[in-house]
Amino acid sequence: MENRQVNIGIIGLGTVGTGVARILLEQKDLLETRSGLNFNLKTIAELDWSKERDLDLSCVNCTTNAHELLDDPEINIVVETIGGYEPAFSFISKALKNRKHVVTANKALIATKGMELYKIAQENDVDLLFEASVGGGIPIIKGLREGLVANRFESIYGILNGTTNYILTKMHQEDLDFDDALKMAQEKGFAEADPTLDISGGDAAHKLAILSTIASNSFIPFDKIYVEGITGITKMDMNFAQSFGMTIKLLAIYKRYNDGVDLRVHPTLIDNSHLLAAVGNELNAVFVKGDFVGNTMFYGPGAGERPTASAIVSDIVDLSRDLLLKEGEKYCNRAISLTQDVRLIPVEDIENRFYLRFTTKDEPGVLSMISGVLAEHNISIASMVQLESHGKDNFVPIVLLTHKALEKSMNEALEKIVRYDFVKKDYLRLRIFE
Amino acid sequence: MENRQVNIGIIGLGTVGTGVARILLEQKDLLETRSGLNFNLKTIAELDWSKERDLDLSCVNCTTNAHELLDDPEINIVVETIGGYEPAFSFISKALKNRKHVVTANKALIATKGMELYKIAQENDVDLLFEASVGGGIPIIKGLREGLVANRFESIYGILNGTTNYILTKMHQEDLDFDDALKMAQEKGFAEADPTLDISGGDAAHKLAILSTIASNSFIPFDKIYVEGITGITKMDMNFAQSFGMTIKLLAIYKRYNDGVDLRVHPTLIDNSHLLAAVGNELNAVFVKGDFVGNTMFYGPGAGERPTASAIVSDIVDLSRDLLLKEGEKYCNRAISLTQDVRLIPVEDIENRFYLRFTTKDEPGVLSMISGVLAEHNISIASMVQLESHGKDNFVPIVLLTHKALEKSMNEALEKIVRYDFVKKDYLRLRIFE
Repeated sequence: MENRQVNIGIIGLGTVGTGVARILLEQKDLLETRSGLNFNLKTIAELDWSKERDLDLSCVNCTTNAHELLDDPEINIVVETIGGYEPAFSFISKALKNRKHVVTANKALIATKGMELYKIAQENDVDLLFEASVGGGIPIIKGLREGLVANRFESIYGILNGTTNYILTKMHQEDLDFDDALKMAQEKGFAEADPTLDISGGDAAHKLAILSTIASNSFIPFDKIYVEGITGITKMDMNFAQSFGMTIKLLAIYKRYNDGVDLRVHPTLIDNSHLLAAVGNELNAVFVKGDFVGNTMFYGPGAGERPTASAIVSDIVDLSRDLLLKEGEKYCNRAISLTQDVRLIPVEDIENRFYLRFTTKDEPGVLSMISGVLAEHNISIASMVQLESHGKDNFVPIVLLTHKALEKSMNEALEKIVRYDFVKKDYLRLRIFE
Repeated sequence: MENRQVNIGIIGLGTVGTGVARILLEQKDLLETRSGLNFNLKTIAELDWSKERDLDLSCVNCTTNAHELLDDPEINIVVETIGGYEPAFSFISKALKNRKHVVTANKALIATKGMELYKIAQENDVDLLFEASVGGGIPIIKGLREGLVANRFESIYGILNGTTNYILTKMHQEDLDFDDALKMAQEKGFAEADPTLDISGGDAAHKLAILSTIASNSFIPFDKIYVEGITGITKMDMNFAQSFGMTIKLLAIYKRYNDGVDLRVHPTLIDNSHLLAAVGNELNAVFVKGDFVGNTMFYGPGAGERPTASAIVSDIVDLSRDLLLKEGEKYCNRAISLTQDVRLIPVEDIENRFYLRFTTKDEPGVLSMISGVLAEHNISIASMVQLESHGKDNFVPIVLLTHKALEKSMNEALEKIVRYDFVKKDYLRLRIFE
């Protein structure tokens, strides 16, 4: 490394890439003050240069060909911000094989092909960092991997998707239906035109896979995670939750048991007194329990040009330290060590408290039939609300909160209950945060 | 470094030292899995070996002489947990001069003699880390220095003292007077027998000095910080605050202006909708605004054997990386770079909203006289509460919330107001968090 200069190449100048370029240019002096290193944005590869980006790139080599920077022996660190699987995977692999460190925010790629990429990095004595892939600007990956390195992680509860948190917050605060809240999120730029990956819980599952991999030192592929989205939640459920002193959040859950880990993403009722219940709008938070540190929480913006770029640049500064290492040495505690083999506990074997909302005929005996089935499966009711009938069809909502029960028992009970013709098929079952 | 073994010496086996030894022994395999390094607790120096500590130290060299480990060429990292200025300062200096990395939780020492110690570390190509000195187990120093390295820090608001936060929480939740809440804190082990350093705000000022030094890249000695403690706050104030939808917290404040930084520790009214208001009991939190990341918060236990030890061990693992460096190289972004010169803005020049509580004679004209003086000094009243007189002495409390006003103007106004003989001298002036 000559003159303590670190040469950086960025692939992709969309929202995030623009943010990274902006920090490297605008905060150059600050970064040099803090690190003693000169971060030189050498090359940017981008297909569409027609867009106005409000950046002075006169000192940067601008190209449409990513290989120009991937093949440049002067480039030390490659930042991939194009997202998606291909060509992102090929670009990252090539950079690593050319012994360049890589920084990415590509959560889908890390959650699926991470293991392959770590291996390539390891074989080539370079590092692959991805702080921005979870929790946007929140330094949660660094927090788990380094700040809390002394801890076995008992549990991690994350509000990891800004879109769904914004929607649920608006449903709660402004008494909106799901569709109206989604529209509002799209208007404000907090939801994509196609919001499927967010509202299905898939994005949160990608992020949970990444956090769980770090927490357990075992590669957790995201398709092994039990996932439910938020589309079934109505403003009626928000109001019921509120009447029980709770709010509904899409929660990503990692919980360690003696015989494995429990991984889930689903909407969850959280008591209003818990700090996570206060995390509103598009914000993210991760509540972490370590066996030594106890309960901690990391909170902040989970997306956006500037926060995401803040995380990427922190990875760049971290990686620049590697350039000072002895030949062949590597920060083993920076790279994720995936030597453990962790069992995933099937969701059926997990105990939870439940929120159940049925729509039933308003007639005698209904409640006793439902509670009878639950009792048969060892599920006891903690509280219950039944509203008076107002509609013409003589159907009313009944909401039950249960004590702890096995998921398997609940599945069996629900299957029986919806077979009754006085119960509509579109019931809702949520879980309650303990 | 032979066999990737890191030899560690601990000076002091009190609460924190015991926690560090416990992690190094109990989590040895976990740390090796995560870091690829073998952390060997070689020597502990402690004067009093008579205490029962529930640790198996059969493989550890136990001594009463700290110099035994300071002079041992095999020891790579020294952990100082004895606290106080001397002999801690001498031990740390000697360790650094003997080219050992040092980890400490000694906030008083770092906040006063930090600059001297950094210099010795720098001269000897070693590092001095102190994650545990602020926020106990919360990785806030790593968060500022590394996770948010790309940001200029606009503001930092910290609940940094568990004792005072516990006292204020109990005053609020259980309607206790200060003295009763303090007694409760002492009984639960959240306050020392002599609580002066905590309730005076001194401890929070030490921690603010450390965070500000990192945030500003300029050494901030803690005695330059404006400090007020919490002893003047009564349960009446808690109730008044509550009636305005706020709660009172001892807040450590760092705020950056174009012409300098504003540093203060004082009790502060915080709106109940703010996340900081929800940080209860002995817990700590730091709310950080960076120019790129926006608002973030770090929350967790601010003290105790296990959380503090968790932070110290994270420093040990970090430092162990230095042992892989090329001869003479150093992580410049790990060591704090203190090359900047930052002006401290005098508190008189700062604008705040204020909470004022006077005890006045219950007679006509009093309020108009007080509001008249405030108006003379350009201070306008936002809201006001006056309770009916119940006591025999015909004195009543009046509480005013003001709009933003200059501290200097407020000082002048208060001086005039308390000269009136219908106002008791023991008024209370607090500031409101914006």
